[in-house]
Amino acid sequence: MTERLVVIGGDAAGMTAAARARRRRDPEDLEIVAFERGPYTSYSACGIPYFVGDLVSDVDDLVARTPEEHRRNGIDVRTGHEVVAVDLNRRRVRVRDLAGDGAAERDEPFDQLVVATGAVPSRPHVPGADAEGIFGVQTLADGVTARRAVDERAPRRAVVVGGGYVGLEMAEALVRRGLEVALVDRTEQPMAGTLDLDMGALVADALRAVGVTLHLGEAVDGFDVEDGSVRAVHTANRSLPADIVVLGLGVRPDSALAKEAGIAVGETGGIVTDARMETSAGGIWAAGDCVESTQRITGLPVALALGTHANKQGRVVGINATGGDVRFPGVIGTAVSKICVYEVARTGLTEHQAAELDRDVVAATIESTTRAGYYPEAAPIKVKVVADRRDGRIVGAQIVGAEGAAKRIDVIATAIWNRMPVDEVASLDLSYAPPFSPVWDPVLVAARKAADMLD
Amino acid sequence: MTERLVVIGGDAAGMTAAARARRRRDPEDLEIVAFERGPYTSYSACGIPYFVGDLVSDVDDLVARTPEEHRRNGIDVRTGHEVVAVDLNRRRVRVRDLAGDGAAERDEPFDQLVVATGAVPSRPHVPGADAEGIFGVQTLADGVTARRAVDERAPRRAVVVGGGYVGLEMAEALVRRGLEVALVDRTEQPMAGTLDLDMGALVADALRAVGVTLHLGEAVDGFDVEDGSVRAVHTANRSLPADIVVLGLGVRPDSALAKEAGIAVGETGGIVTDARMETSAGGIWAAGDCVESTQRITGLPVALALGTHANKQGRVVGINATGGDVRFPGVIGTAVSKICVYEVARTGLTEHQAAELDRDVVAATIESTTRAGYYPEAAPIKVKVVADRRDGRIVGAQIVGAEGAAKRIDVIATAIWNRMPVDEVASLDLSYAPPFSPVWDPVLVAARKAADMLD
Repeated sequence: MTERLVVIGGDAAGMTAAARARRRRDPEDLEIVAFERGPYTSYSACGIPYFVGDLVSDVDDLVARTPEEHRRNGIDVRTGHEVVAVDLNRRRVRVRDLAGDGAAERDEPFDQLVVATGAVPSRPHVPGADAEGIFGVQTLADGVTARRAVDERAPRRAVVVGGGYVGLEMAEALVRRGLEVALVDRTEQPMAGTLDLDMGALVADALRAVGVTLHLGEAVDGFDVEDGSVRAVHTANRSLPADIVVLGLGVRPDSALAKEAGIAVGETGGIVTDARMETSAGGIWAAGDCVESTQRITGLPVALALGTHANKQGRVVGINATGGDVRFPGVIGTAVSKICVYEVARTGLTEHQAAELDRDVVAATIESTTRAGYYPEAAPIKVKVVADRRDGRIVGAQIVGAEGAAKRIDVIATAIWNRMPVDEVASLDLSYAPPFSPVWDPVLVAARKAADMLD
Repeated sequence: MTERLVVIGGDAAGMTAAARARRRRDPEDLEIVAFERGPYTSYSACGIPYFVGDLVSDVDDLVARTPEEHRRNGIDVRTGHEVVAVDLNRRRVRVRDLAGDGAAERDEPFDQLVVATGAVPSRPHVPGADAEGIFGVQTLADGVTARRAVDERAPRRAVVVGGGYVGLEMAEALVRRGLEVALVDRTEQPMAGTLDLDMGALVADALRAVGVTLHLGEAVDGFDVEDGSVRAVHTANRSLPADIVVLGLGVRPDSALAKEAGIAVGETGGIVTDARMETSAGGIWAAGDCVESTQRITGLPVALALGTHANKQGRVVGINATGGDVRFPGVIGTAVSKICVYEVARTGLTEHQAAELDRDVVAATIESTTRAGYYPEAAPIKVKVVADRRDGRIVGAQIVGAEGAAKRIDVIATAIWNRMPVDEVASLDLSYAPPFSPVWDPVLVAARKAADMLD
């Protein structure tokens, strides 16, 4: 008899799982049905700022695989369909067809289920937050809406609310489109959740340099609305005129559906899975932004909404749901972003996060150049390394610098993954040639400084 | 009583050792004397091609620290002085002053000695090899001579002999200076010693694309000389007219002085040291291109002439010679070079090297892009990963690609250092954002393919 695998969510995690399962099992053997609320599948949400900023002109370029392509591969993709309930006992999902009046619902049976519901963007609970002209940039459909607003309404002034990497990338994109851009964030520096303040200060400088006005340490407490459209953003200190507002307040796992079905959800708000990505319910798998993962350094659960994890987890689900046995080994917390002139990267724990966890650490910060000092286009790079005082292990790093700086974070991520002592990191056999690095790579210099501080 | 540390060789290894020792011990306590044959200290030999190619215009930019700067730091640097013999029993070196007639010699005592004599460039033993117009590019003085020849003699045609990375960088430099350049190498592809042939073929394409004529699989068997100057280069198949010839035939450790003194030299031709960089003779240390190091993957000794190792080893010597206790942990064989449009990198064992060692390996090669496919300036990258069939460990990798490709080799070097299984490498938490990488970094894709081949 044909088994039926149902996938909820048509982006990276869900469709990677579906595609992987499809490659491993024939259609006669396994039917695969994927329900996606929106019109797109397998798209790069990370590309939205570049689409809005017109570095990418065609939205189709952000789509890795269309619903039609998935269908040709033998996956029954149903876009415009929202799963509104999961019945674990009867092994079926209740699906709403969003076409027409959006009231048509029906039950769809499954043998195994993949929950890949993604994340919910945080929205400010303040007056006017639902006005027209206030955009999230969570889904590709959001991105299309935001770009159309810029293309067609010719807004002059934008306010970005939220200084995480998405907010900053959007601020830069809007500057590129010729808007006057202000950014409001309640924290003292941009990217305060992922960078220490000293490193975030560099990012703030880069934003100011392209003309973004920063209002830091200020929370949004309301919006002025006229004729249903946003006109201004209010904080305790000021009113900022705005033709459009972009929300970049971060996301939380979209685990409500799973929770209502009785699937375990952790304190992070993410669905709990084992290393095989199976939830508390047998045959029910979960992957992507809706789950929590294990932070390998602390052993603690974290909810990180990143395409890399979604893809890796989706692959694990696709294999395990079809009789395989592979594991998702957890995360380190590596991330990278390009913010104006700077490349910005981080991995592991910041000094601040380590302190919150009562870890005794040293933090070493060094300045160097991306290439040999004498080589054309050698440019500044700043590397901060965090190491545990007890055992000397490297537990985190942050990099801010010019072209060529950021991808160096991967070396440190690999070192952390392997629990390397920081003095051994300083001895690593890394590549050197003048177009690529000073003879001591900045990563080695930072690790050496941390090791010396431990001595 | 003041102790006396004598250093033979004033480049990276020797002067790093001297400077590190100086920082750890006061001059009243430790006298440090460094003898250097040439006029320069602490220079970047790796920068010579960029100086000849006029990407760097001032030779002083390649000098990290001048003799005068070292002297101001309390190191008695004597340039133009060659150490011609070491007497271990009487703890003294015989030093020749190369000024004047070069015949003045005297003995200099030492308590501890650092041998940092560097490497000797290979020269072809064929008729005419000593003609004017034939240049090595081993020392900075060589580089100055070569550049002067290009600046002042306005040569039209150059032949580069040797297709290692220095030869290729020099070929590109000479093209940049407007010369017609031919390259002769006895192997089938450029960089045959460090890249597999399939990856070297890409490098050959890049050289041809800028107009370098490649004569591969041909050895030089003589030079035409007129009035003492070179006029042509001969191989079995052809005669290549040449106004100047650049030799890039590689180097071997300059260990003759040490060997004559009774210090152990290995089969690689490099001076043997322990992990503390002490030679077979107590209180005699060695560092840099003149020593052999342990290849961490094979455990075998190798002689690798690279500035990174020289600097790290020099640091170890400077610390240990002043009562410290640190170790040089060996090498993986990581190297990188920019050759025309390509960045070229390698680490660990090539497929060919693994076969020579009778290791049963799989090799997986993948093509991807340096950035997300839709992001501007996304460009090709090819990654080859070599893994051991017995234990699944990653043992080598090669990368050829556009800007942003090569430094990824450091991730694999770190993975090899930690003896990671290739399937775990494929799970690493590497950074992703569209300006930096596809969602699956090419390193992960290559590792995954190798892991799948092992299954």
